[in-house]
Amino acid sequence: MRDDADEAGAEVMPLTVRDEDGNLSDSFRNRVNEAIEARDVDVLKALVGDLHEADMGDLIEELDADERRRLIELLGPAFDFTALTELDETVRVSILRSLSPITVARGMRDLDSDDAVYILEDLDEDEMAAVLEHLPAPERVALQRSLDYPEESAGRRMQTEFIAVPPFWTVGRTIDYMRETADLPDTFYEVFVVDPAYRLVGSVPLDRLLRTRRPVLMSAVKAEQAKVVKASEDQEDVARMFERYNLVSAPVVDDAGRLVGVMTIDDVVDVIQEEADEDLRALGGVRSDEELSDTVAFTARSRLPWLVVNLGTAFVSASIISLFEGTIEKMVALAILMPIVASMGGNAGTQTMTVAVRALATKELSSHNARRIVLREVLVGLVNGTTLACLLGVIAGFWFANVHLGVVISSALILNMIAAGLFGILIPLAISKLKLDPAVASGVFVTMVTDTVGFFAFLGLATWWFAT
Amino acid sequence: MRDDADEAGAEVMPLTVRDEDGNLSDSFRNRVNEAIEARDVDVLKALVGDLHEADMGDLIEELDADERRRLIELLGPAFDFTALTELDETVRVSILRSLSPITVARGMRDLDSDDAVYILEDLDEDEMAAVLEHLPAPERVALQRSLDYPEESAGRRMQTEFIAVPPFWTVGRTIDYMRETADLPDTFYEVFVVDPAYRLVGSVPLDRLLRTRRPVLMSAVKAEQAKVVKASEDQEDVARMFERYNLVSAPVVDDAGRLVGVMTIDDVVDVIQEEADEDLRALGGVRSDEELSDTVAFTARSRLPWLVVNLGTAFVSASIISLFEGTIEKMVALAILMPIVASMGGNAGTQTMTVAVRALATKELSSHNARRIVLREVLVGLVNGTTLACLLGVIAGFWFANVHLGVVISSALILNMIAAGLFGILIPLAISKLKLDPAVASGVFVTMVTDTVGFFAFLGLATWWFAT
Repeated sequence: MRDDADEAGAEVMPLTVRDEDGNLSDSFRNRVNEAIEARDVDVLKALVGDLHEADMGDLIEELDADERRRLIELLGPAFDFTALTELDETVRVSILRSLSPITVARGMRDLDSDDAVYILEDLDEDEMAAVLEHLPAPERVALQRSLDYPEESAGRRMQTEFIAVPPFWTVGRTIDYMRETADLPDTFYEVFVVDPAYRLVGSVPLDRLLRTRRPVLMSAVKAEQAKVVKASEDQEDVARMFERYNLVSAPVVDDAGRLVGVMTIDDVVDVIQEEADEDLRALGGVRSDEELSDTVAFTARSRLPWLVVNLGTAFVSASIISLFEGTIEKMVALAILMPIVASMGGNAGTQTMTVAVRALATKELSSHNARRIVLREVLVGLVNGTTLACLLGVIAGFWFANVHLGVVISSALILNMIAAGLFGILIPLAISKLKLDPAVASGVFVTMVTDTVGFFAFLGLATWWFAT
Repeated sequence: MRDDADEAGAEVMPLTVRDEDGNLSDSFRNRVNEAIEARDVDVLKALVGDLHEADMGDLIEELDADERRRLIELLGPAFDFTALTELDETVRVSILRSLSPITVARGMRDLDSDDAVYILEDLDEDEMAAVLEHLPAPERVALQRSLDYPEESAGRRMQTEFIAVPPFWTVGRTIDYMRETADLPDTFYEVFVVDPAYRLVGSVPLDRLLRTRRPVLMSAVKAEQAKVVKASEDQEDVARMFERYNLVSAPVVDDAGRLVGVMTIDDVVDVIQEEADEDLRALGGVRSDEELSDTVAFTARSRLPWLVVNLGTAFVSASIISLFEGTIEKMVALAILMPIVASMGGNAGTQTMTVAVRALATKELSSHNARRIVLREVLVGLVNGTTLACLLGVIAGFWFANVHLGVVISSALILNMIAAGLFGILIPLAISKLKLDPAVASGVFVTMVTDTVGFFAFLGLATWWFAT
């Protein structure tokens, strides 16, 4: 930061942007706030002009709506719209709506196509049209083509800037071409080789290009492109492929095999992160698109459906309990202890389900090894059920000075722990067989089973044992 | 595969390695099994000789222990040990132990240093020493140096092969050097510039190197290396940095600023994946190192501690219920309905906690915005609590033909939903303030609070309401 401040000649002290924990530092944020307040463009440029897009994104998130718009307007062309890709969708859309379409279009012009698409795709169709209208024809057409691919497809995420040369060019000619051409992509990791119809015939990673002598033909250095992405492919499948084969970049082709773009690892890292996040949220009963910047009303509405479903399953458990009203009336200790059996089963079932859901997502669990894993989970339930049953039985027996109660609750716990292991894995497997996402629906069913079995086994056994 | 089969001249039919779902195809696996059975090295080489390490890894996981060892022995030098990096730790260690140290050492020799370290680090010290003994001195020393860094540090994950040139070299000389040197790293994305003491002075991405004319000095093209990794840094912090700044590779320096290695995105993708996975498992009450290939005994033991803790908190809830024994005795409907209030609170608390834990992990939630988010969660609890309370109150009132009961349970639910929102976020925040991992411990405390508050509010209100 010292350099920037000196260059700008402004009286800005050197500042650290981030504190030790990796959060934006208070002093930095305060200085930016003051500069926006004072509309001091010079100080503002000195402060944030050279900020990395990721830091700029974090900064914008911490400003209020009015400051955000003013920051962007004050910086004018010095504001790099790439920073918008780092924002929550809600924040990004509200900023875009607060700016004029001309300003947005001007900002789009310097962006890589994948970033431009990422920013525009959340807008309504007419808002998008208003921005596209102000772009030069070639860029407009390129963006339009990407936007025509389905959401979350490779076509949406790909960059349409890439380097493609014919097979008869030499390595030397290719290098010279790159030295002479000003309008190259910002970063690239491979050069593609295409035939006259622009069909992909191979690719040359840059390190290989650099290690090859100038007279060699590109057709001789090119690697058969083993890993090619179809533009219509789902981004998750692309991410899985990048991850599996440790790719850094891969060509994207249309249905006719023509090269239309390139996917790079930085987009894929976001997808991998999002995907793991989606599983985690789904298991926690939260919609995957919920963001920290959402309003109370939106958040409440998005979380309600899952809670309503849970209310339904809770009534199922309650009706199981009501079957044993008479037994409970005679022995209130049962009411006191019954949540323990249900809760232990719920936890064990969640453990099994968590492992199963992730293993299904990473394809480690398949029909090939399902039988072995189901057996393992049942045995784990039996082993831990037995261990915990001893503990629970003794404590419960002493508490109510009733050995019989100890025996009954121990037996019920073992049964419920086995059910937890069995259904904790069978339910995700069944849901995934139905081609649905096991992370989303497994939780409800697993806890419904462990609650039901827990209450039924404990109260049922008690009724039978104490009646005889 | 067709090419491979033709080249090998063997009577191997073309086979698809993976089926539509991305799993290894049955026919492929069967062919490999038969070849191992028949000890037919030619067919085996034709089948798997050109397999990508990731596919080879998946294949090995699906073989049994004996077949694994035989596959590796049959393939001999044709077996690429990189495939071992794709295996579960348990499988990897058991394979390494089944092979002689000389065989392992021979396999290590062709590996990138980061892969070799990754494979060796799980072995015991004397097993490791036995393998290192059979390696040539330079490689042994390099590996030993990486292994001296703490586990999960950048020093362990870095690759020690990289290209470093002095600042007075020209672009042309650098390119010529790369063309003439045979022993370069397998893949690389940047060339480093170092001073005579091997201290890092900058780096040049390959695309920039390719775009620059030959006579330009490396010192003139080099970018000030803004993002440098310290060898002692934790891999998670490195991953966060790669992710934030969209890096593909970054230099690793020792405490004296000397260049000792390079971290690349492929290692980081694994770390990102692992980290998200750890959060997810922790929330599900499963240890992060649990693998699908673990035995029943190991799995049961690793899951037990969390279940014992849960047993403790379940007793806390039970003792709350026991306070109201008299009330329940008079009105069994309370025992039937009370799990509903607790369960709804538990679910709402889990929703809030899930969001909080991930937001803390990604640094989106910090002391700066904590107040606003806590308020939002409490309000969400209030809004959804009120909605669900109406539903629950009416159903419960009709079920037991008792309006009073409906009023009591509605009020209890609203209270518990607010508690769920409040503690669902305060507990992870508090745990993270204590510098502990909120994903690991939040779940127990949140459900303890929602169970306790749920039972206490419902039974307490009922006691008070029906007594007056």
